[in-house]
Amino acid sequence: MDAIEQWLTEINFGPDGLVPAIAQQHDTGEVLMLAWMNRDAVRTTLAEGRACYWSRSRQVLWRKGETSGQVQRLRELRLDCDGDTVLLLVDQHGVACHTGRRNCFFRAWQDGEWREIAAPEIDPAMLYRDNEDR
Amino acid sequence: MDAIEQWLTEINFGPDGLVPAIAQQHDTGEVLMLAWMNRDAVRTTLAEGRACYWSRSRQVLWRKGETSGQVQRLRELRLDCDGDTVLLLVDQHGVACHTGRRNCFFRAWQDGEWREIAAPEIDPAMLYRDNEDR
Repeated sequence: MDAIEQWLTEINFGPDGLVPAIAQQHDTGEVLMLAWMNRDAVRTTLAEGRACYWSRSRQVLWRKGETSGQVQRLRELRLDCDGDTVLLLVDQHGVACHTGRRNCFFRAWQDGEWREIAAPEIDPAMLYRDNEDR
Repeated sequence: MDAIEQWLTEINFGPDGLVPAIAQQHDTGEVLMLAWMNRDAVRTTLAEGRACYWSRSRQVLWRKGETSGQVQRLRELRLDCDGDTVLLLVDQHGVACHTGRRNCFFRAWQDGEWREIAAPEIDPAMLYRDNEDR
């Protein structure tokens, strides 16, 4: 086992082999999205310097932006106290959300209902050829 | 079903009845921690105006700070595009991490190893009587 593999054992992947991964814009602090990573996704993210997740719906490694161009350049990878959540400080190119919004958390609970607090900045149809990459 | 229950159906709880919940300091943008919520935890958080999670280890509702006093006052609850992650904007009283650090993400991947980038601000023994509340 090489050094990186040794250190990656600090990450406590769940029974499904995944940990939640929070992506945060490194300079503004904006929480962009939450996705999932397996060991290969962490390795690939570190090796390539860009966020790579595990798509639970498609069951494949998913390099964020591979279809849309909305790449997340990695600034720093952090691990929490229990080792079961990672935080990615990234530089988001364009929008993070497949709806065309800057971040995925655009519904806020206000006065007893969910209200949209952000509008799309770009037409999602402009982002995706096949609507699979998010 | 009352209005709140109706709206809570927008949240797509997983097969285990849980969604990941990111707690973020509302004014600085600091990501404090990630925990888990079931439907009761969301209801309780909204009703009481403070973060309440589901403890996977203890299998009970866990009002953050009930032992330690490190309460998270809720400023806003947000939901992501897929409805399967919530973001809590909170006002954290004291430290969020059970290690006595302000946030849980104090290990950063630097030069091929995890390095601690934050020190405890308070002795954890001062926070907990029984070390169960986090």
